[in-house]
Amino acid sequence: MSSIRTVLDYATANKARYENDLIEFLKFPSISASPQSRTDILQCAEWLAGRFRAAGLETETLPTRGWPAVVARTGPLKPERPTVLIYGHYDVQPVDPVDLWKTPPFDPVVRDGVVYARGATDDKGQLLTHLLAAEAWMKTIGDIPLNLIYLIEGEEEIGSPHLEEFILEHREKLQADVVVISDTSQFGPEMPALCYALRGLTYMEFIVTGANQDLHSGMFGGIVPNPNQVVAAIVAEMKGLDGRIRIPGFYDGVKPPEGWEVAEYEKLPWNDSDLAAQLGLPGLSGEKEYPAPVRRWYRPTLDVNGMYGGYAGKGAKTVIPSIAGAKVSMRLVSGQNPERVAELFEAFVRERVPDDCKVEVIRYQNSPAIIIPVDHPAMKAAKVAFRNGFGKEPLLIREGASIPIVAFFVDTMKMPSILFGFGLPDDNPHAPNEKFTLADFHRGIATSAHFMDVYSETAG
Amino acid sequence: MSSIRTVLDYATANKARYENDLIEFLKFPSISASPQSRTDILQCAEWLAGRFRAAGLETETLPTRGWPAVVARTGPLKPERPTVLIYGHYDVQPVDPVDLWKTPPFDPVVRDGVVYARGATDDKGQLLTHLLAAEAWMKTIGDIPLNLIYLIEGEEEIGSPHLEEFILEHREKLQADVVVISDTSQFGPEMPALCYALRGLTYMEFIVTGANQDLHSGMFGGIVPNPNQVVAAIVAEMKGLDGRIRIPGFYDGVKPPEGWEVAEYEKLPWNDSDLAAQLGLPGLSGEKEYPAPVRRWYRPTLDVNGMYGGYAGKGAKTVIPSIAGAKVSMRLVSGQNPERVAELFEAFVRERVPDDCKVEVIRYQNSPAIIIPVDHPAMKAAKVAFRNGFGKEPLLIREGASIPIVAFFVDTMKMPSILFGFGLPDDNPHAPNEKFTLADFHRGIATSAHFMDVYSETAG
Repeated sequence: MSSIRTVLDYATANKARYENDLIEFLKFPSISASPQSRTDILQCAEWLAGRFRAAGLETETLPTRGWPAVVARTGPLKPERPTVLIYGHYDVQPVDPVDLWKTPPFDPVVRDGVVYARGATDDKGQLLTHLLAAEAWMKTIGDIPLNLIYLIEGEEEIGSPHLEEFILEHREKLQADVVVISDTSQFGPEMPALCYALRGLTYMEFIVTGANQDLHSGMFGGIVPNPNQVVAAIVAEMKGLDGRIRIPGFYDGVKPPEGWEVAEYEKLPWNDSDLAAQLGLPGLSGEKEYPAPVRRWYRPTLDVNGMYGGYAGKGAKTVIPSIAGAKVSMRLVSGQNPERVAELFEAFVRERVPDDCKVEVIRYQNSPAIIIPVDHPAMKAAKVAFRNGFGKEPLLIREGASIPIVAFFVDTMKMPSILFGFGLPDDNPHAPNEKFTLADFHRGIATSAHFMDVYSETAG
Repeated sequence: MSSIRTVLDYATANKARYENDLIEFLKFPSISASPQSRTDILQCAEWLAGRFRAAGLETETLPTRGWPAVVARTGPLKPERPTVLIYGHYDVQPVDPVDLWKTPPFDPVVRDGVVYARGATDDKGQLLTHLLAAEAWMKTIGDIPLNLIYLIEGEEEIGSPHLEEFILEHREKLQADVVVISDTSQFGPEMPALCYALRGLTYMEFIVTGANQDLHSGMFGGIVPNPNQVVAAIVAEMKGLDGRIRIPGFYDGVKPPEGWEVAEYEKLPWNDSDLAAQLGLPGLSGEKEYPAPVRRWYRPTLDVNGMYGGYAGKGAKTVIPSIAGAKVSMRLVSGQNPERVAELFEAFVRERVPDDCKVEVIRYQNSPAIIIPVDHPAMKAAKVAFRNGFGKEPLLIREGASIPIVAFFVDTMKMPSILFGFGLPDDNPHAPNEKFTLADFHRGIATSAHFMDVYSETAG
C-alpha cells in the first residue's frame, strides 16, 4: 500500500475526531476586532498551538505587535525537499447582527452535515484541513515529504496590521517556494476551484468641506456651497451608469483575457440570470460589451462604498452640511499600477472641487493585482490533488476580490501563492449563520494530503 | 399722561421682575422631542398658564393629541375691536451636543446683559414679551384696546404635528384679523426687522435600491448596480455647481423682486465678504447673476440635506450597498406651486433611475411661500410700534426659511401673519449656548405694548 493510501485511511478512520477538533476550535470567540477579553484570543491561539504539537509538528506561539501568530513546522529544513508555507488565520469576524443567527455563533451546531458557527469557513474550518492532513501523515508515515511551515495569524479580520513586519522579521524562518492558502471558495457545490488571479485594490476617500459649520437650508440656501452637491458631481463624473470609469488614464495597461482564459471561463456553469435573480436584480449590470465573468475578474472597477453628508436619520432635517464625503474602492487588474491609479484618482477629484470648497483626499490601501502562472509546478500539483481529493477536475478561476497579504507574498517575498478553495460561495463569511459543509472539510483534508504527496514528487 | 406712557412706565418699573419671570420660564426642560419626563412639559405649560392668569388674562390649558396648548385671551370678544392672535411655543429644541454648552442649558445665566439658556430666543424669551406687554396694560389701564388671543403650543420643535387640527377644532375661538409671531430675528444688533415674506418648502427623499443585500465590492464589483452611483448621478444632474436647478419647469412662476423691494434690500447693511468670512468661505456661492439677498430671499433653492449609502464609519469597508438615498429640501418663492414642484421632482428622479434599480420617493412637507402685503394696517402699525419700541425704523426683510404654520394661518385661516423679530441672527437657536439679549427683551415688550396701542387705533 502506498504512503498516501495509509495517510487517507487514517483520515477516514479519524473523521469523527477531526469533526470534534473543528467544533472545539469554533468555540473560541476569537474576534480580533473586539474580543470580549484578551483571553478569548490567547486561549484560541494556545489551543491551536497544542493541536499542531499533538499532530507532531514543532510549534511556537510568537508575539507580534498585536495578537500572536502560531508558527508550526516539520522540523529542520531538508534542502532537498520543496518548502511550502501554509497561511491561515485563527481570528474571526464580529458576529453582529447577532439576533439574525439561528444558533449562537460560538456554540457550533451540525445540521444536515453542515457545521454552523462564526469562523466555520473563514478561516478555522479551512485552515484546519491542512493541519489534520499533516497529522495523518505524521501519525502513519511519521514524516511528510515536504518542508511545511504553517503561519496562522490572529489579525486577518482587522486587516493584518502587523503581519508584514512579522514576516519580514522572521523572513528566514518563513521563506518558502510557494504559499498555500485556503480562504476562498469552490465555484459552487462540488465544483472545487483553483484561483490563479486576484484583483488589486486601491481604496480612497475624499472629504469635501464647505462652510465652517452646518447651516440652515432656509437661511443659507442659495448663497453657500453644499458639499453633498460637490461630492455627487464628482462621483457622477467619475463613472457612468454604463459602468465605464472616466478617470483619464485609469484603464492604461488593462489587457483582455488570453485565449485559454476565455476557454476556461466559457467552461464555467455561469448563468447571468440565476445570479441576478438570487440578488433580486432584473439582470447583471456593468459594461455590457464584456461578458459577466470578464467584468467580474478581468476588468477593473470603481465602486463608491460609502457616501455621506448631512442628515441620514428618519424624517426631514433642513441642514446644509459643512462636510460630505465618499469612500471609493477600485479593483485593479494586472497591468495597472496601484500608485498611479491613486494619483489619477486624487488629481481627478482635486480638479473638480470648486473654489468655494476644500478637499482632503485619503489613501487607505494600495495593492496590485496578482497572477499565479498556471503552469507553476505547485499549481499543477494542486490540480492533481483536487482531482484526487474531490474526485473532480478543479476549475481554474480568477477572483474579483483582493487578498492584500497574497500581494505581499507574491511581490515582496517572491512566493507564488496557491489558493485552495474548499468553502462554498454561500457559506456566509462576515455574515450571520456562517457555515462549512463537513463533506468539504473532509475532501479538503484529503486534497491537502494529496498535495503534500504530489508536490513532493513534481516540484522543480 | 397717555395710556401707553403709563403702560411703558409699569414695564420699566418691573424690569427686574420681568427678567426673573424669563429666568423661571427658561428653567423648565420642555424638550418636546424627548422630555426626560412628561412632567417637564406639563409643568412648563402650567407655569405659563399661571403667568397668563396673573397678568389678568382668561387662560386655559387645552389638550391636543400631543402636548397641551396654552390659550389665553382678553375676555369675551368685543366686536368693535380688532382681534389679534399671538402665536408662540413653550417647547424647546434638544440640547445635544450638551458638552459644548458653557453653562447648563436649563440653568439660565446672565452674562453681560445676555441670558444664556435653551429656549432663550426660541421661543420662550420672544413669546414672553407679548405676555408681559399685556400684563403692563392690564395692571395699569385694566384693559387692552384689542381682542387678544394667545395660542402657545408645545410641539413646534417637532413640527407641530397636531396644531392644524387643533386650530381647526377651535376655529371659532382662534379666528383673528391678524396673527403676530415673534420667532424670527432682527437683521443685526439694533436693526429690528419686520419680515413680510417667507419661502415655502418642499421636502423630498428618494431611496434607490439595487441588489437585495449589501455585497462585497471585490466579488460583485462590475456586475451589479451601485445605488450610491445612481443617487450621485441624479443629484448631480438636478442642480449645477453654478447653483442652477435643472428640473424642467422648476422655475415656472418665479418673478424678480419689484422695484420697491430692490430699494429695500439695497438699504440693508449687507456685506457678502463679511458673511462669507464668518462662514469660513472665500466668498458667497450660488447663481452669480443675482445679488446675494435675491439668492437668499427671492430665488428658489434646492439643497441636498442628507446623502447616504454604504459605509460611513472610520476607515475602509468594501461594500456595495443595497440602498442609498438623498434628502432634498427645495425652498420655494411665491408663484411656485409646492404640489407641482413635488411632482416635477418625483418625475425627474423616476426618469433617471436605471432599470436595474428601484426607487421610492417620499414627500415630507409641502408648504407654499408666503407674502404679507406691506400696506396691511397691521404691518403699518407694527412699523410704528418698532419705531417707538426700538427707537429705529424696522427694516423690511424677507426670510429664506419657511414657517409651515404661517402658511396655514395665511392660506387656510386667511389671517395675515406679522413677524416681529426681536432675536439676533447669532442667538443660536437649535445650537449650544442659545441666548437672548435682555435689552432686546425689554425693547420687545415695549414694541408689543405699542403695537397694541397703535393697531387698536389704525386697524381698518
